[in-house]
Amino acid sequence: MRMVDVILRKRNGSELTSEEIDYFIEGYTNGSIPDYQASALMMAIYFKGMTEKETARLTKAMAESGETIDLSGIEGHIVDKHSTGGVGDKITFITGPLVASAGVPVAKMSGRGLGHTGGTLDKLESVSGFHIEMSKEEFIENVNKNKLSVAGQTGNLAPADKKLYALRDVTATVDSIPLIAGSIMSKKLASGADSIVLDVKTGTGAFMKTLEESRNLAEEMVNIGKNLGRNTIAVISDMNQPLGYEVGNANEIREAVEVLQGKRIADLRDLGLELASHMTVLAGIYSSYEEAYRGLEKNLDNGKAFEAFRTFIGAQGGDTAMIDDLSKLPSAPNHIEVTADTDGFVAEIDAESIGVAAMYLGAGRATKDDKINHAVGITLNKKIGDSVKAGEPLAILHSEQSEPNDSIKKVKEAYRVSSEQAPKKQLIYEVIK
Amino acid sequence: MRMVDVILRKRNGSELTSEEIDYFIEGYTNGSIPDYQASALMMAIYFKGMTEKETARLTKAMAESGETIDLSGIEGHIVDKHSTGGVGDKITFITGPLVASAGVPVAKMSGRGLGHTGGTLDKLESVSGFHIEMSKEEFIENVNKNKLSVAGQTGNLAPADKKLYALRDVTATVDSIPLIAGSIMSKKLASGADSIVLDVKTGTGAFMKTLEESRNLAEEMVNIGKNLGRNTIAVISDMNQPLGYEVGNANEIREAVEVLQGKRIADLRDLGLELASHMTVLAGIYSSYEEAYRGLEKNLDNGKAFEAFRTFIGAQGGDTAMIDDLSKLPSAPNHIEVTADTDGFVAEIDAESIGVAAMYLGAGRATKDDKINHAVGITLNKKIGDSVKAGEPLAILHSEQSEPNDSIKKVKEAYRVSSEQAPKKQLIYEVIK
Repeated sequence: MRMVDVILRKRNGSELTSEEIDYFIEGYTNGSIPDYQASALMMAIYFKGMTEKETARLTKAMAESGETIDLSGIEGHIVDKHSTGGVGDKITFITGPLVASAGVPVAKMSGRGLGHTGGTLDKLESVSGFHIEMSKEEFIENVNKNKLSVAGQTGNLAPADKKLYALRDVTATVDSIPLIAGSIMSKKLASGADSIVLDVKTGTGAFMKTLEESRNLAEEMVNIGKNLGRNTIAVISDMNQPLGYEVGNANEIREAVEVLQGKRIADLRDLGLELASHMTVLAGIYSSYEEAYRGLEKNLDNGKAFEAFRTFIGAQGGDTAMIDDLSKLPSAPNHIEVTADTDGFVAEIDAESIGVAAMYLGAGRATKDDKINHAVGITLNKKIGDSVKAGEPLAILHSEQSEPNDSIKKVKEAYRVSSEQAPKKQLIYEVIK
Repeated sequence: MRMVDVILRKRNGSELTSEEIDYFIEGYTNGSIPDYQASALMMAIYFKGMTEKETARLTKAMAESGETIDLSGIEGHIVDKHSTGGVGDKITFITGPLVASAGVPVAKMSGRGLGHTGGTLDKLESVSGFHIEMSKEEFIENVNKNKLSVAGQTGNLAPADKKLYALRDVTATVDSIPLIAGSIMSKKLASGADSIVLDVKTGTGAFMKTLEESRNLAEEMVNIGKNLGRNTIAVISDMNQPLGYEVGNANEIREAVEVLQGKRIADLRDLGLELASHMTVLAGIYSSYEEAYRGLEKNLDNGKAFEAFRTFIGAQGGDTAMIDDLSKLPSAPNHIEVTADTDGFVAEIDAESIGVAAMYLGAGRATKDDKINHAVGITLNKKIGDSVKAGEPLAILHSEQSEPNDSIKKVKEAYRVSSEQAPKKQLIYEVIK
């Protein structure tokens, strides 16, 4: 087999065989197929697409290109949740304990990476003492005992995906739906979950700006899951503004815990219950979505979900006093209001700009050596559809500096106030299974 | 400027600016832009094409990426001829002397390369003593004195094209009309001709199989020439069978000389006159095609064209006795007939197979270290439309071996004899200026 023929066949619109796909991924991973042939193939795929069969095979080959995590020591059906990413997304801290409270094991691997705020690990480290250093055996024991544990991602998972993604990033071949779907799903498959619930974000603050694109991506991923024997459900949820009211590290932990303590923060509570309901149904704990939703709502209100989170934090060395009294979480010395210039209604909040403002405050990493400040962040006082008067605060910056002008400017830019009231944003658009 | 943005713009169908094209060619030539970005761009161009303006700029940038040949020491208007390649194409040995006989300087650079038969240089070296070793000054002096000289291609001409072509060859991006046109024209421009006549082959034995493709390529090249200030004319000529009756090195010199001596070998004489007429009109020697054709025909019949060839061969050390008596050219010991199995008419002669058969005999190079045998080759006894009886020879192999079975098989495969008479093939389809 010659790689140039594989590229030619795809360029001419043929369906690649499983052998051709495996040959490419194997050769690209071991370096016998050079970057320049891989990038030509990626561009041909951008234009010609891939069939369901091809996409599934590519995903499988990437998932199997390195180590795969063996979670067979864990009792029960493991359901993983994945979000395509957005600003203020602390849903993992709600769904994890919720699902665990229903008896479903949650064995989460998480990395750090770059971003406007930290990743799951960074956010959890807002709690003093919390750590992820443990052996694989301890991790599995933790999950079996408490139903919830988070470990640092070790091992060389889906190296073909890592290498291809880096190549796509510099060759203008990122935004191809089958390639995005394959990239996400290959990592999920390598991580060893039995079933997968995907939170596909849609809107101005998401990678997929339109509902149609988001639906295509969701369907592609659900199809991959089905083709490779993993039950997969995708929920398409709104990212036309940040999720909830808090952006940052400690800020997000605080807000998530409030939801776990029963506070009605509409979009967070609703989305958390939605995702967790699908997860528990897939795990076989409940027989229907409605039953799951009612059962999990009960666990939010009776404290079981909060208790699951508290136990998990304690088991990994975290200071549970901070969870019991959220005012003990790290906090920044300055609270700076960003106020409205005119009366009106909030029409838009650009999530990307809010994220950048938080990063300027120190909440995230622009390069991998940046240190995260857990205390800084942004509280949104107003969301889309809310009325506001001139001089009223739109948002509050939690800052180390007294005049974080770059962040203030970014938050100002993020908000658009209009004289007409925009309708509230729908939270959940579609569920694809 | 970032290369990824250039790729993205082309991928999305935008016209690249001159600055973007120059940035790419400069960066790719000096190695600051890697192969994997170049191949992604090539694939995007394959799918999205290039405008006339982009193609001209790319060609200019490639032509100027290395050395360019300065022919300003040559008196008169220099017209170069280029063929897109075919089997049995010895037209250069006819047009060169013809044009020179009319007083137009022909300063030809030629390489060796791989192929079914040798290149221009190899064929000329069938004549004992002929050589191309001379200084640039001698070359120019030769042209000024005799109007015709052939030198080995030295110097680093259009290195961007060389590098890109090698990349396209292994990334399935060769067959893009603007890229093919730019590749050919960049070398012509770097070679310093004032005007260019292109012989674009069309048919089963050509790179472009259909008239439409050939016309697209021809138009693209003529447009490039015009945009870059070189008068360019393209003749689309037939390559549904080998050109003339001889394939090989000495074989082809012999047949070309016969035409120069006035022999009526229809397609060779006609195509030679056609191309030379356009060349001499572009050089300003004749005021019309018709006048040129009549004048050049006279030079074929009165021996002036032959004399120009003979002088040229002698000036570069060649044994002119071989030209005066063609039986002194190298000849192979065995002459093997390939005969027809049935009565009928020749319907097809696959030029590619005849070329491969000649290469098997030793007439060409499969790798650059192969040595060429000037004496071997193939004489076609029958061409498309000719009637043939069972047992009559279709072709004769000039071979070192007594049983060149691979070649015999290939020639047999090349011929299709049918009970119905096919019409003779048209020789010249279109002239594009």
